[in-house]
Amino acid sequence: MATITLKGSGQKMPLIGYGLWKIPRPQTADAVYNALKAGYRLLDGAGDYGNEKEAGEGLARAIKDGIVKREDVFITSKLWNTFHAPEHVAKLARFQLELWGIEYFDLFHIHFPVALKYVDPSHRYPPEWFGDDGKTVELDNTPIQATWQAMEKLVDEGLAKDIGVSNFNGSLLLDVLRYARIPVSVLQIEHHPYLTQEPLVALAKSRDIAITAYCSFGPASWIELNMHQSVPSLLEHDTVAQIASKHGKTPAQILLRWATQRGIAVIPKSNNPDRAAANLKSDDFDIPEEDMKTLSGLNQGLRFNDPSGMSLGLSIFA
Amino acid sequence: MATITLKGSGQKMPLIGYGLWKIPRPQTADAVYNALKAGYRLLDGAGDYGNEKEAGEGLARAIKDGIVKREDVFITSKLWNTFHAPEHVAKLARFQLELWGIEYFDLFHIHFPVALKYVDPSHRYPPEWFGDDGKTVELDNTPIQATWQAMEKLVDEGLAKDIGVSNFNGSLLLDVLRYARIPVSVLQIEHHPYLTQEPLVALAKSRDIAITAYCSFGPASWIELNMHQSVPSLLEHDTVAQIASKHGKTPAQILLRWATQRGIAVIPKSNNPDRAAANLKSDDFDIPEEDMKTLSGLNQGLRFNDPSGMSLGLSIFA
Repeated sequence: MATITLKGSGQKMPLIGYGLWKIPRPQTADAVYNALKAGYRLLDGAGDYGNEKEAGEGLARAIKDGIVKREDVFITSKLWNTFHAPEHVAKLARFQLELWGIEYFDLFHIHFPVALKYVDPSHRYPPEWFGDDGKTVELDNTPIQATWQAMEKLVDEGLAKDIGVSNFNGSLLLDVLRYARIPVSVLQIEHHPYLTQEPLVALAKSRDIAITAYCSFGPASWIELNMHQSVPSLLEHDTVAQIASKHGKTPAQILLRWATQRGIAVIPKSNNPDRAAANLKSDDFDIPEEDMKTLSGLNQGLRFNDPSGMSLGLSIFA
Repeated sequence: MATITLKGSGQKMPLIGYGLWKIPRPQTADAVYNALKAGYRLLDGAGDYGNEKEAGEGLARAIKDGIVKREDVFITSKLWNTFHAPEHVAKLARFQLELWGIEYFDLFHIHFPVALKYVDPSHRYPPEWFGDDGKTVELDNTPIQATWQAMEKLVDEGLAKDIGVSNFNGSLLLDVLRYARIPVSVLQIEHHPYLTQEPLVALAKSRDIAITAYCSFGPASWIELNMHQSVPSLLEHDTVAQIASKHGKTPAQILLRWATQRGIAVIPKSNNPDRAAANLKSDDFDIPEEDMKTLSGLNQGLRFNDPSGMSLGLSIFA
């Protein structure tokens, strides 16, 4: 299985992983179990996904059945916005590890460059974007530097092997690189042919930061949420379909290979075992350079995951 | 004259100023003198423009001739990238004040969210982007927070009445706002109908940060530098020309009014006294909402001042 060597720890991160975003809690344990059984060795979770306990159950069952050992699986999670204060970072990492039933994360990200007011997990978890009224965004003033330094302590304490950031753009990433004592190993970003982000990808590569793409299928995940329904699906896009047909692959495989062929990791989710298997097998061929360019030519700078719609205080991509 | 009240000091910043970028040193004193004589009350300079001594000479002559008093003129300058280390910030501010022959700046910006290796002004000034070899970009690891805190001390010491940032985008600006003890009074950004930056403008306004637009004429300034010559000039753009003709104004006046009508300050430069006077008079009419929208509709996200072309380490807009 293709991997990327991470700058921080030197460990290898699989190029294709299984994403846990939006997997309903009751299905998560089975989904994780089946993903591991199908050969996935990277699970991409987050506190915000609300299914870490169930993911841990699926993992435990796979370990018990001899499918994997803990050390065979690269487990990623993310720190939510409400826990940026230094005193909350390790507390939440431990809380999330306990949900998973594991001793360490292979990779722990700052989920967004957004600091929100603390919400005690015993009060509400996952706390999501709004305060108790369900509509007000309450900002917190913890600078990213303070959060990053608390993240570094997770590595010192063995709670995370590598640390990374997610949804950071160039200028803020460059600022983190100025003070990072422990390297930024991975940058996770929205990335698909409608949002190719070449300059950010080039910047990260120039600093040996691995990139994980989320939303590899573009609007697909959002259409399920009744959002962005007017944007043509990439999974049914003529250009993607034609290239897929030419190479005897599915559109999903083309979209994933377009990323991995450029060294960008992907974390597709699928509740369908056949599709999950097909996604995992998506790197056993190469897309010719010409078709790669055609796919990249679909770029429109079109971003689906932009929290600024909720509040101008969340204009992280402005 | 229309002004914007600044969040930090409460002082008023003129909505239309005179920009000193690219004014050749031998012409700067006269240009500044004539601008003040024509009624300009804001001078927008920067260490990097290399003409602060001459600007100060023009100012001194205007004061001597009774055209203005120092306190009538809002003087902006900017800290260059090579001086981000806390120990250099006040040193450079004093050096630049001495060049101008004044006691304080009304506004002092961090010019770019880029920290470069220190260059002693006695060795080379202004040091620009590259090292002594004229081609290598040498990064420095001073975080923006350290630079901002040194900027705040300029206010404490009376060397600057207000402080601001330039070329910062949303996520980095939001981070500064988390630790700023003294408010970010002004954000200076590239802004013209090809690059309308609505989300960033909305974010700044939501935090009471005034915005100054540079490059209001789009590619015009760059065409003079033999850059971006393939982009149609906004000053000769059909849409702009038609709106200008309809209202009996020049295209330059339309481009400036499009910004100021939305509360965004402008700092056009002109070596031609008639054009400089016309620019200053550009806010004595209103562009109808429909024409405002047409102008904003020219947006292509087209940025002319992007240092990432020199080095990926400068990918501040990625």
